[in-house]
Amino acid sequence: MDVPSLVASAREGSPRAVARLISLVEDASPALREVMALLAPHAGHARVIGLTGSPGVGKSTSTSALVAAYRRRGMRVGVLAVDPSSPFSGGALLGDRVRMQEHATDAGVFIRSMASRGHLGGLSWATPQALRVLSAAGCDVVLVETVGVGQAEVEIASLADTTLVLLAPGMGDGIQAAKAGILEVADVFVVNKADRDGADQVVRDLRYMQSLGTQSPSQAKVEGKWVAPIVKTVAAKGEGADEVVDRIEQHGEWMREHGVLDQRRRRRAADEVEAIALTTLRERMGDLRGGDALERLAARVVAGETDPYSAADELVDAL
Amino acid sequence: MDVPSLVASAREGSPRAVARLISLVEDASPALREVMALLAPHAGHARVIGLTGSPGVGKSTSTSALVAAYRRRGMRVGVLAVDPSSPFSGGALLGDRVRMQEHATDAGVFIRSMASRGHLGGLSWATPQALRVLSAAGCDVVLVETVGVGQAEVEIASLADTTLVLLAPGMGDGIQAAKAGILEVADVFVVNKADRDGADQVVRDLRYMQSLGTQSPSQAKVEGKWVAPIVKTVAAKGEGADEVVDRIEQHGEWMREHGVLDQRRRRRAADEVEAIALTTLRERMGDLRGGDALERLAARVVAGETDPYSAADELVDAL
Repeated sequence: MDVPSLVASAREGSPRAVARLISLVEDASPALREVMALLAPHAGHARVIGLTGSPGVGKSTSTSALVAAYRRRGMRVGVLAVDPSSPFSGGALLGDRVRMQEHATDAGVFIRSMASRGHLGGLSWATPQALRVLSAAGCDVVLVETVGVGQAEVEIASLADTTLVLLAPGMGDGIQAAKAGILEVADVFVVNKADRDGADQVVRDLRYMQSLGTQSPSQAKVEGKWVAPIVKTVAAKGEGADEVVDRIEQHGEWMREHGVLDQRRRRRAADEVEAIALTTLRERMGDLRGGDALERLAARVVAGETDPYSAADELVDAL
Repeated sequence: MDVPSLVASAREGSPRAVARLISLVEDASPALREVMALLAPHAGHARVIGLTGSPGVGKSTSTSALVAAYRRRGMRVGVLAVDPSSPFSGGALLGDRVRMQEHATDAGVFIRSMASRGHLGGLSWATPQALRVLSAAGCDVVLVETVGVGQAEVEIASLADTTLVLLAPGMGDGIQAAKAGILEVADVFVVNKADRDGADQVVRDLRYMQSLGTQSPSQAKVEGKWVAPIVKTVAAKGEGADEVVDRIEQHGEWMREHGVLDQRRRRRAADEVEAIALTTLRERMGDLRGGDALERLAARVVAGETDPYSAADELVDAL
């Protein structure tokens, strides 16, 4: 199938066409230029919700519960699991996978895992492109699920309109949250497994940490800053999912009112455009003088005939 | 002091001038262009030895023992500790610091910790510049010490002529080594604390893992591949340090014979020149159209009027 037909099929909601397009994204296919040009007018429709948290907090169960909650509201939902250890890409418990399968036959749900194999810019580059595909395919909401380990979650958070940080009792998450800078990243906190001992303590810890910020919650509200609400859920029973969706909607309203949504999306687009431009420039530098301009300059640096700054100037001037 | 005088003082071995120059590197000072241009003819003298390993294997004690071994051979030595948790930058045991102080009054030794505060490219960018300073100041050898955690150590290894990977008994290092790709990084393995139980097991584990590689050690030798030797040391008593230095020298000989040294250094210089060139280009993109070219393009991407690839092309064409 040629690219325009593939894009047309995806626009009509064909799961196979969507899957093929996301594979092109994963593989950083040269066809992506054409794909993205065709998708552009339809690419900004979906709300992007990031889900992150340590292993064991119940991310995929929560994702599943949120999918169900959105479906009850008649919305089309995409799920993008961007971590190799995620159940969707085969690394985790069978129980979770079975759980997600209740949505597998629902035509209003696209579920897709994504790896960054061979992708120059990694997932931070592939994810926004996959989001465009899902948005153009008619998804009203895309849930981006990622394991919260260090840098990756901050990157994914920067790709989402609203970021949910999941925690659970008995995991020392409070301290971890403070460490990993999760506090700044979260738009909504979800304390899952709230029927277990210690859930209220997690909520108290979070409130305390929020109060330690430069602003108190009440002050912050006055000054128009969003204070991440804390929602308790028991995702395995679907409890709390509707409230999480309500909070996400509230956050969306707040962002629109304050111009934050557009600002976040422009920031994301700017990062993406810059990354692509730098890659183009890098390739051009690599191609200069039959491909060995950089090697010649490097040899002169090693020989002490020039310094790296002057060599870089020469390279830039030659472009 | 103006830059030429500062460079001249550093060339004469003034510790204060060397310290000032490395501070300029840490701060990514605009004066670096001039500094690096003046240093260029003298910047490639020193052999660069990377030291890496998990916390607790005795990195700073080993560094100190190696400094002593090199000093006995009449060589001038630089030590660059590029990790914030390193004793040299104040994060570790007092005992280690005291140990290093035996060299603190030796005019033939420069000891310097380095942070990457505010440095755009992080330590991978600052380190080669600091190495140039130490080389120009007359160091024959520079030991670059870094904690071996994930990506950082691979980056540092790529900056060194010869990389030592330190292990110690009872730390599960064998498995860690295999995991972190340390095997590919190591030019010499040092099993420290060799007077403790389990040291021979660490050596056997390493040999076993080496044998699992695509080539057996004997085959590898025939085909001209370097097989990292394994040296047992008790750094706290200085035992084994001379053998480590011998092995480093052998590796140097081998690299010169096989053209590997020049190849590694050119690769490093090429990476450095490319990184500087990309930074320059990025700054120029940021300055386009009074600084808002990227923002305007991003707004058009968000509005669905263009796609990121076409926007990136516009940006590149405008340069």
